[in-house]
Amino acid sequence: MPNPTAAMLVIGDEILSGRTRDSNMHHLAIALTEHGITLAEARMISDEHEVIKRHVAELSERYDHVFTSGGIGPTHDDITAEAVADAMDAPCGIRDDARAILQAHYDRSGQELNEARLRMARIPDGAALIDNPISAAPGFTLGNVHVMAGVPTIFTAMLAGLLPTLTGGAPMVSSSIRVERGEGDIAGPLADLAEAHPEVSLGSYPFTQNGIHGSNIVARSQDAAAVERTMSALRALFPEAV
Amino acid sequence: MPNPTAAMLVIGDEILSGRTRDSNMHHLAIALTEHGITLAEARMISDEHEVIKRHVAELSERYDHVFTSGGIGPTHDDITAEAVADAMDAPCGIRDDARAILQAHYDRSGQELNEARLRMARIPDGAALIDNPISAAPGFTLGNVHVMAGVPTIFTAMLAGLLPTLTGGAPMVSSSIRVERGEGDIAGPLADLAEAHPEVSLGSYPFTQNGIHGSNIVARSQDAAAVERTMSALRALFPEAV
Repeated sequence: MPNPTAAMLVIGDEILSGRTRDSNMHHLAIALTEHGITLAEARMISDEHEVIKRHVAELSERYDHVFTSGGIGPTHDDITAEAVADAMDAPCGIRDDARAILQAHYDRSGQELNEARLRMARIPDGAALIDNPISAAPGFTLGNVHVMAGVPTIFTAMLAGLLPTLTGGAPMVSSSIRVERGEGDIAGPLADLAEAHPEVSLGSYPFTQNGIHGSNIVARSQDAAAVERTMSALRALFPEAV
Repeated sequence: MPNPTAAMLVIGDEILSGRTRDSNMHHLAIALTEHGITLAEARMISDEHEVIKRHVAELSERYDHVFTSGGIGPTHDDITAEAVADAMDAPCGIRDDARAILQAHYDRSGQELNEARLRMARIPDGAALIDNPISAAPGFTLGNVHVMAGVPTIFTAMLAGLLPTLTGGAPMVSSSIRVERGEGDIAGPLADLAEAHPEVSLGSYPFTQNGIHGSNIVARSQDAAAVERTMSALRALFPEAV
């Protein structure tokens, strides 16, 4: 059975302007690969209601899961919750369970749960809360859309709680060799080998290091034995490989 | 007049599996912002013909420019040229001008222009070549789609040659202040200020550093005077800000 599929939406103008470099997509990619969910695509989009709504609607229809990061804080530009709710046709407002979590958190820290902070209790009807062990304000899962914070430490912590609750498939197994020859030298025999092993995905990634032009060749499959067969063939083809 | 808009397509399974962390999108975002082209969205997608074709067709229709990175090398998994040509309804094959560039390059280095390397001369009919000062194999512009290499040094060099040929708009001007108060504290007054200055885009980005929870507030606009007015208002609102 093929693995479940997923898409990611990284939400925020600061990524697209180059002010901030996203790291959540790379973290999610590694975590999903280990869990046996195939990340089929990722999109970085601006924080406008209609834009978020359009992408969430399209991706939640196309894939088994959608993961979002960004836009669930207390400020005026944090609009992800409403936009996701709108895309999924769910009403969205301050919810008592989320408010109670925030109230307890701010009581402990001696801060006021003011109107701005209360915005972080806006959760769509029918959504399940995602625990935030760092700063309390929860994410949520609505249908197949998992809405998480943009701050990397919080995103990571939310995902660590969420991922074990999702059904994964067979984790992807991968193995690689490093050949100190340029891609143009090895591409011919590599193409023949790829054709002879259609059950694995065979990728070639060029590198330049200390003046050496080389290629990392990566074999990937859910079938560990098939990866091992392909690696044997690769080592026979490139006996000098590391 | 609004600035030209753009989208980026980062092509390659190695990004989506987490094996490689993309850096080209962040580089492009900064370069386009400086040049006065608005990066409206970026997508990371897998290197399958139909997937590349679908996204190129959609984005080239929606935006003024599409920039792609990845998949134009000599190996069997380098399929971007054909997929882009297919999306834009252009024939694609070995082109004499590209072949001459490669022949001269490999003659100089004493290597053979073999069948695999010749794949890098596959250029769609009607496309303009993009210069590759690093390793010769050119990128190309077909319609409003700019196809470049995935290797970061080559992507950067290609973009440096391409960007001055594209018409930019007014560069985005941005300015920021750092407030050592959490977003929940400042969100109320910040929302009022954002409403009073609709001509600028006002973003708030939380940070935690040495145990301090703070917010970076960023004002962005093509109108430098409007950014300055907003910054004055921000400094009056948060006199303790740095």
